[in-house]
Amino acid sequence: MFAPIYLDHNATTPLDERVLEVMLPWLRGRPGNASSRYEYGRAARDAIDRARQQVAASVNAHATEVVFVSGGSEANNTFVKGAAACLPAGAIATGAGEHPCVRKPAAQLRSQGWRTLELTLDTHGSVDLAHAEALIERESPSLVSVMLANNESGAVNDVAALARIARRAGAWLHTDAVQGLGKMRLDFRALGVHAMSLSAHKIHGPLGAGALILDKRVELSPLVAGGGQERGLRAGTENVAAIVGFGKACELATEELDGRIERMQAARQRLETALGALGAEIFAVKALRLPNTSFFAFGGIEGETLVGRLDRAGFALASGAACSSADPEPSRTLLAMGVEPSLARCAVRASVGHGTTLAEVDGFLRCLQETVKELQQLAAVAA
Amino acid sequence: MFAPIYLDHNATTPLDERVLEVMLPWLRGRPGNASSRYEYGRAARDAIDRARQQVAASVNAHATEVVFVSGGSEANNTFVKGAAACLPAGAIATGAGEHPCVRKPAAQLRSQGWRTLELTLDTHGSVDLAHAEALIERESPSLVSVMLANNESGAVNDVAALARIARRAGAWLHTDAVQGLGKMRLDFRALGVHAMSLSAHKIHGPLGAGALILDKRVELSPLVAGGGQERGLRAGTENVAAIVGFGKACELATEELDGRIERMQAARQRLETALGALGAEIFAVKALRLPNTSFFAFGGIEGETLVGRLDRAGFALASGAACSSADPEPSRTLLAMGVEPSLARCAVRASVGHGTTLAEVDGFLRCLQETVKELQQLAAVAA
Ligand SMILES: Cc1ncc(COP(=O)(O)O)c(C=O)c1O
Ligand SMILES: Cc1ncc(COP(=O)(O)O)c(C=O)c1O
Repeated sequence: MFAPIYLDHNATTPLDERVLEVMLPWLRGRPGNASSRYEYGRAARDAIDRARQQVAASVNAHATEVVFVSGGSEANNTFVKGAAACLPAGAIATGAGEHPCVRKPAAQLRSQGWRTLELTLDTHGSVDLAHAEALIERESPSLVSVMLANNESGAVNDVAALARIARRAGAWLHTDAVQGLGKMRLDFRALGVHAMSLSAHKIHGPLGAGALILDKRVELSPLVAGGGQERGLRAGTENVAAIVGFGKACELATEELDGRIERMQAARQRLETALGALGAEIFAVKALRLPNTSFFAFGGIEGETLVGRLDRAGFALASGAACSSADPEPSRTLLAMGVEPSLARCAVRASVGHGTTLAEVDGFLRCLQETVKELQQLAAVAA
Repeated sequence: MFAPIYLDHNATTPLDERVLEVMLPWLRGRPGNASSRYEYGRAARDAIDRARQQVAASVNAHATEVVFVSGGSEANNTFVKGAAACLPAGAIATGAGEHPCVRKPAAQLRSQGWRTLELTLDTHGSVDLAHAEALIERESPSLVSVMLANNESGAVNDVAALARIARRAGAWLHTDAVQGLGKMRLDFRALGVHAMSLSAHKIHGPLGAGALILDKRVELSPLVAGGGQERGLRAGTENVAAIVGFGKACELATEELDGRIERMQAARQRLETALGALGAEIFAVKALRLPNTSFFAFGGIEGETLVGRLDRAGFALASGAACSSADPEPSRTLLAMGVEPSLARCAVRASVGHGTTLAEVDGFLRCLQETVKELQQLAAVAA
């Protein structure tokens, strides 16, 4: 099979073979309803408990704080809607660069009398702390949700500082750490947040598992209500194989974190040195950033066009967040950073993995250089 | 490994090897974010579209009516909460034997001003049509949710008749068909319902996939909001492997349905003939029932005790719905059928699969006979 070079690890990652290994016994013929009392059920329960420890350990949380759900989007919706359902209608503040799966559930709360507030970004892509502090003190939101790292720009927010601000105002602070997991050290305790969302498939784990890490003081009404699974916070027969795989992926990500970061950083460095030489604008480059993400633009070349050409040449990249690729609007994150819409439309995201080789990067750069030159010549002729 | 005889197929089923076969390419190293535009993404999109056709065909619906979700509980919550969010607060009527993942989201609506109504069961375990008609005409609920077949008793409801009653009253009718799929012919059109929930792991498909089949006239606010996946009705990176497996499991269940029903019926017949001779009370036996389910009790022997003994002897059965096994209350379904609580506490559920052999049933019956005799003697001594 024709195998493109994959430079879109922020969208999803290939499943680690060691993870598949531990999942297979749960896929091969063993019926594992973890809520059942008999032998099969107990084995599934034990495997889930082990995974719960692995996930908790990877973010310095306690196993009892882990609520398994189906993925990152569900984790975010579970927090936003579930916490709001236990509070009188008030205000919810979210970062201007949040993923749609935080923005949209927050917007849905409006029909229940909630107000939505937006925390602005600075020009480097991080939530502006001074603005956030002023807004939160003035408006007293009861919920604040700010992502740990942005999926497009890679910019990291000072979530610990935001958590202090939120606590002073009596708000619960939730952080969407889906893009942080596996790319930076995560510490639920040290961040001081009340809740944190994680997703397995972004760290070489399987699709179908994610977690909401939840401080026990936060009351939550279940998004998926029914059976008593996950302490009544998430009903449904547990996806044992996916949960076991998630646990293993967390363990590997933690054990191998330093080496992974080094390799990702080396690949990105190689990439960005060349991008600079080619005249690309690189966004969020002055922010504290994820080690694997490069969000850039060649002025005058539409991101969609460039990504389409690169695809045909055998390179998989994103022109925006994967989830909204069908949407022709320029990146909201870039607009919130003050980037001109005309330049925002040119944005392309390369996100390397720890398995991305320098040879792959070099191959990509050769193709990119040619493609950009071609498209620039076309543009010059058209002008 | 010690392999118990599995007689709890209503809780979950072993994954069919042919299903695992089609899933593996999506688990082995190929990153498949179906929302991405490049080659990898398109392949995932095509695979999901094929699965959508397979699921639709298995219930005589149109592919565009299939909304993939993570499982049956999520499908039920998606309908109940999602439809309610688009309607003015009114009433929701649910069957007295509904699974908690319908009952609880319905109860959650009360905090938003909704009233909950209960449709009573007759003594055979099916929703009483005359009572339902009178209640629905009098109370005009805007939502009605009645399961196609009960997970404990196996009793099938006349959902087509209920759909007619609901339509006359201007209500949307949803049916939880999680236990019906793969055990009886399902026809979304002929039933005339507005929505139907399905779950893959109950039909030898994988955990992690389910569907809400949804009539296009029904407006729904997404439970998991965010990215535009599933026509905006279910955000989150699609679980390609699980969806592909679900499609295959549906295809196999449809192709092999007649033979499967025959084998399940033969195994249950063997079981129930012996149960009758041993003096067990068999519930819902006069109702139209699923071909695989036997819900029975030996008066004076607690279901929990019997199931525990059978487990130690190598047989996996349920004393109630798996999801509520941690809950010591007697089955709500039985109480709603008018069964005395003391007898309801003795209930045990055996649910065979199409792979259950007559030899397995005979082995089970030998053990059951001995165990029951022992427990009856102990009870006699204690008395
Ligand atoms: C009737 C019924 N509805 C819904 C469910 C929930 O399905 P799932 O386990 O896929 O969430 C079950 C199974 O537990 C069931 O028996
Ligand atoms: C920042 C962020 N949050 C949440 C999600 C959603 O995660 P999932 O695809 O597991 O639902 C994504 C990925 O698309 C993401 O990048």
